[in-house]
Amino acid sequence: MTSTLVLLRHGESTWNAENLFTGWVDVPLSEKGEAEAERGGELLREAGALPDVLHTSLLRRAISTANMALDVADRHWIPVRRDWRLNERHYGALQGKNKKQTLETYGEEQFMLWRRSYDTPPPEIELGSEFSQDADPRYADLGADLPRTECLKDVVVRLLPYWESAIVPDLRAGRTVLVAAHGNSLRALVKHLDGISDDAIAGLNIPTGIPLRYDLDENFKPVNPGGTYLDPEAAEKAAAAVANQGR
Amino acid sequence: MTSTLVLLRHGESTWNAENLFTGWVDVPLSEKGEAEAERGGELLREAGALPDVLHTSLLRRAISTANMALDVADRHWIPVRRDWRLNERHYGALQGKNKKQTLETYGEEQFMLWRRSYDTPPPEIELGSEFSQDADPRYADLGADLPRTECLKDVVVRLLPYWESAIVPDLRAGRTVLVAAHGNSLRALVKHLDGISDDAIAGLNIPTGIPLRYDLDENFKPVNPGGTYLDPEAAEKAAAAVANQGR
Repeated sequence: MTSTLVLLRHGESTWNAENLFTGWVDVPLSEKGEAEAERGGELLREAGALPDVLHTSLLRRAISTANMALDVADRHWIPVRRDWRLNERHYGALQGKNKKQTLETYGEEQFMLWRRSYDTPPPEIELGSEFSQDADPRYADLGADLPRTECLKDVVVRLLPYWESAIVPDLRAGRTVLVAAHGNSLRALVKHLDGISDDAIAGLNIPTGIPLRYDLDENFKPVNPGGTYLDPEAAEKAAAAVANQGR
Repeated sequence: MTSTLVLLRHGESTWNAENLFTGWVDVPLSEKGEAEAERGGELLREAGALPDVLHTSLLRRAISTANMALDVADRHWIPVRRDWRLNERHYGALQGKNKKQTLETYGEEQFMLWRRSYDTPPPEIELGSEFSQDADPRYADLGADLPRTECLKDVVVRLLPYWESAIVPDLRAGRTVLVAAHGNSLRALVKHLDGISDDAIAGLNIPTGIPLRYDLDENFKPVNPGGTYLDPEAAEKAAAAVANQGR
């Protein structure tokens, strides 16, 4: 028995467009991002990769992407599960800062360490500051779990319990699962699925709005390692563009 | 202890605009309907009636209304539960038919009996016909529960188990519950809440896009019988317009 998992990174947000570090700041999709979400839905429909259940983060850009894609794919009516553990990496004190200015201020080495090292988080965000989430009602129950900054390793650590306890049971029940989430929460999941090393994950980018299908065996390991993009040509172009962000 | 229930009838659909019987046919919101949904979200936000959990039908016009309203109210991240028991009344063989033509063909008495009598359903829809749902995957598990026509009494009968088993537990847990649904599924719920007689329910219309708040006591009976519209003036105007549909 195999099961099907489809990963969908949200379309461009207004802050992607402005080249700002976003993290847990809850910005909307840009117009381009909305078009990407709809295109994602068309790809799901054309491939017959029709989800039976949706998992999203608690952030608007992933939720809107899923809503729009599922509406286009005529699957707007499926059950929905949401969890903070699918949120983007918390970018700490960098949230709200311009990527280019950050690069100029701190230099290439520090910038790339924060962006791509596996276990070096940015400085912690100040509680009560403009782009902190400590007063946000959606995280009121998190208590000490509420991050003030995260490296990718932190994302893996908080994501995997959700994978095991919420997503795997849906797969085990034979459901096609759509996970609509973020660049780094999806990198964390792909790292686990494909057994990518702490070093090698730095080079992996997941493009926005292009569904990535994994066919999983009975141990929930990929039959198609690396997954299959539903639009491989667009995925290749987009991955190259993501790698050049902040330049 | 009181709990808060907010009812929201979806905004105008493309078929409302064209004056067609819709029922379980899954038509989208019109542009006017989208604007109504956003206004509904503004009203929730302004009144501080912020839902902790959403219940919707399986129909796009209710799902989209909820998505848009919650996005405006900054509550897009709340848990979602969906169930066919919140669907609009199944309009049987009238689904897809023009209301004015139906009135002319069958006459005022028969027309009003189908539209407003408590226990006279329209003729059954033909299985496999254009506007039947027997091949729709979202209802694949319903088996003999899949209706081929419904009167309002049928809606009450299939709605109340969901009220008791899914909505009341959320209210009991102290959550503010938003139910985004349809003219007749909400009439069925209001009939139960306010103890309206089988005869008197014929005269009750619920306007689109205007949240209706009920404050419920520990037995889940209204402290404010009839509920409180978050925009009472607009509700009064809209209810009058609904009553004149098909004329």
